[in-house]
Amino acid sequence: MSRFHFEVLATQHRARLGRLQTAHGVIDTPAFMPVGTAATVKAMTNDMIRATGAQIILGNTYHLMVRPGAERIAKLGGLHSFMNWPAPILTDSGGFQVMSLEGLRQINDHAVTFASHLDGKRFELTPERSIEIQDMLDSTITMVLDQCLPADSPNSLVVTAMERSLCWAARSRTAFRRREGYGLFGIVQGGTNASLRERSAEGLVEIGFDGYAIGGLAVGEPQDVMFETLDATTPILPSAQPRYLMGVGKPTDIVGAVARGVDMFDCVLPTRSGRTAQAWVRTGFLNIRNARFAEDAAPLDPTCPCYVCQHHSRAYLHHLTKAKEILGSMLLTWHNIHYYQELMSDMRRSIAEGHFGDFLSEFERLQTVGDAAEGER
Amino acid sequence: MSRFHFEVLATQHRARLGRLQTAHGVIDTPAFMPVGTAATVKAMTNDMIRATGAQIILGNTYHLMVRPGAERIAKLGGLHSFMNWPAPILTDSGGFQVMSLEGLRQINDHAVTFASHLDGKRFELTPERSIEIQDMLDSTITMVLDQCLPADSPNSLVVTAMERSLCWAARSRTAFRRREGYGLFGIVQGGTNASLRERSAEGLVEIGFDGYAIGGLAVGEPQDVMFETLDATTPILPSAQPRYLMGVGKPTDIVGAVARGVDMFDCVLPTRSGRTAQAWVRTGFLNIRNARFAEDAAPLDPTCPCYVCQHHSRAYLHHLTKAKEILGSMLLTWHNIHYYQELMSDMRRSIAEGHFGDFLSEFERLQTVGDAAEGER
Repeated sequence: MSRFHFEVLATQHRARLGRLQTAHGVIDTPAFMPVGTAATVKAMTNDMIRATGAQIILGNTYHLMVRPGAERIAKLGGLHSFMNWPAPILTDSGGFQVMSLEGLRQINDHAVTFASHLDGKRFELTPERSIEIQDMLDSTITMVLDQCLPADSPNSLVVTAMERSLCWAARSRTAFRRREGYGLFGIVQGGTNASLRERSAEGLVEIGFDGYAIGGLAVGEPQDVMFETLDATTPILPSAQPRYLMGVGKPTDIVGAVARGVDMFDCVLPTRSGRTAQAWVRTGFLNIRNARFAEDAAPLDPTCPCYVCQHHSRAYLHHLTKAKEILGSMLLTWHNIHYYQELMSDMRRSIAEGHFGDFLSEFERLQTVGDAAEGER
Repeated sequence: MSRFHFEVLATQHRARLGRLQTAHGVIDTPAFMPVGTAATVKAMTNDMIRATGAQIILGNTYHLMVRPGAERIAKLGGLHSFMNWPAPILTDSGGFQVMSLEGLRQINDHAVTFASHLDGKRFELTPERSIEIQDMLDSTITMVLDQCLPADSPNSLVVTAMERSLCWAARSRTAFRRREGYGLFGIVQGGTNASLRERSAEGLVEIGFDGYAIGGLAVGEPQDVMFETLDATTPILPSAQPRYLMGVGKPTDIVGAVARGVDMFDCVLPTRSGRTAQAWVRTGFLNIRNARFAEDAAPLDPTCPCYVCQHHSRAYLHHLTKAKEILGSMLLTWHNIHYYQELMSDMRRSIAEGHFGDFLSEFERLQTVGDAAEGER
């Protein structure tokens, strides 16, 4: 079994090409993790996921603890075995979903208590319990429990939440059972306030983690504010560990964050868009329900080597989405994840070859070309 | 391009092993055709369908004519090209769906007129128009328009519908554009009345078709009544052409019909069951939502070589169906179609080897073993 080991292989300005070794396999960074909320990347078989080039997926602790339950997954051999995905899995702490259960949850320094959205059953989530659950899930990368806030939270609340998150990070570190090839990531909080981010990062580094996530972004703030916060945060993170920007994002968000030194990403966008008839292509995105695609015999993206673009037309995908056919969700999700993986792979190649600047120019040029009609972008 | 040619390779009592050559490929019979209503076998990619061993699928003329429209599919190269399924496709005439639009349709000797279930748009379907639509779809096997009735229809209505269907069959034959490798099937009607079935079959044979379907069964009658009707019908059909029992059925129905000389089948059961958490296995079927599967690490069927049984547990499928995940529908549909194709392949092998009697005994024995708990069968 490999030890948990991250290596930066090349850099271009602040962009990094890296390789993360884990107990369940290697992850080439910058990496995008498709979201597999309830032990499934929605509408995808594991073979389809692998065909996109994805090396790691994300599982949601909150969803898994309420159904089918962490104890049950443990009894069935852990999440890799349960869903038959032997490659790496990162699980979140459950905090983000729980915090968003407005009216159903209470939080104090000890724990967050909440009622399941499924049946109202009461749960208590402490930092220790979150670690225990992720251990039962057999997560390759475990995340500490933190307190997440909406983008417009008052400063005093941001300070309290950041300090509480630091305290919880220390408790999580203590609770984490170290195993060869498994890692624990801390989460930098502090909203969009640079000095709070600095305080949070320093506190986490003092505790010591295998990787550092940037939390509390992509919660409604404009892209330039997110980029400013990244500019203030990534330079104060250790360069020897992977950096993970949670819940981000659109392709332009991801490219901008890679340029600012981020290594890992997750987002529901490619999967959710796939179920709402949207396709990401190199020149933007297409709302495939649009009537102009009804007799369009071209593939989604003529340059895309994915299964969907090699086998099916926009006209067919248009029909499937109009008819609300499951196959429409399957094919668009497949294409979208493939698009995201190609984007990451293109960035990795450009960093390796020392052409990341060229990649950036070409990416931005294509975004402005736009295949999509006005109003669709 | 092959001509449309059927050959009976072996028989065992009344069961037949055959091979049907068409413009789009070979179909080994007895054959089961998965239903691809709206230009997609629901929740299946074409690769998945092929992996089950299916050699032909069925398309529904009614659904395709109302969306996306036959003219549009023709413009996009026909149904094979539109959905990228180059293998054989049989289309029904549209009659069955239209007849079931209670209150939305009117029928006379000329045509059936109806309002689309989607938007109320009025359509007129004549025998000639049905043939024309199926021609635009580029169907490998075209079905004549017939008048279908519910199982409990009065005898006078059964007579009228049978005579009207014969008249429509003649008009269909005239309208059909003969092409190398394409076929037109007539449909025997006459309810459960043996002499009416005989009159219908004789009339159709006089017109002359490339195959003969048995319609108006599996509309609510008990299995023994269906079998009696088959006993009265298959012997009066030409032995040199394929026989197709429309809309049938459960595995026991299919096995019983093969034993009575039927060669081809279609049914929504394996696909629809797959979307309602039911799995067909050699010993009956499983309602996978049942709590007893929640921690069952075994595959659906330990003897099944399909992708699903090779990769996933009942516990995982139970979870997916409880969580209403699309992947649950995908995997159960895949397994179910594979089960049906294996059943057909087992029958073909047993007829080829002269052991169809043994197959029947073993099939019946397994059905009574039952993996399913009481009340699930």
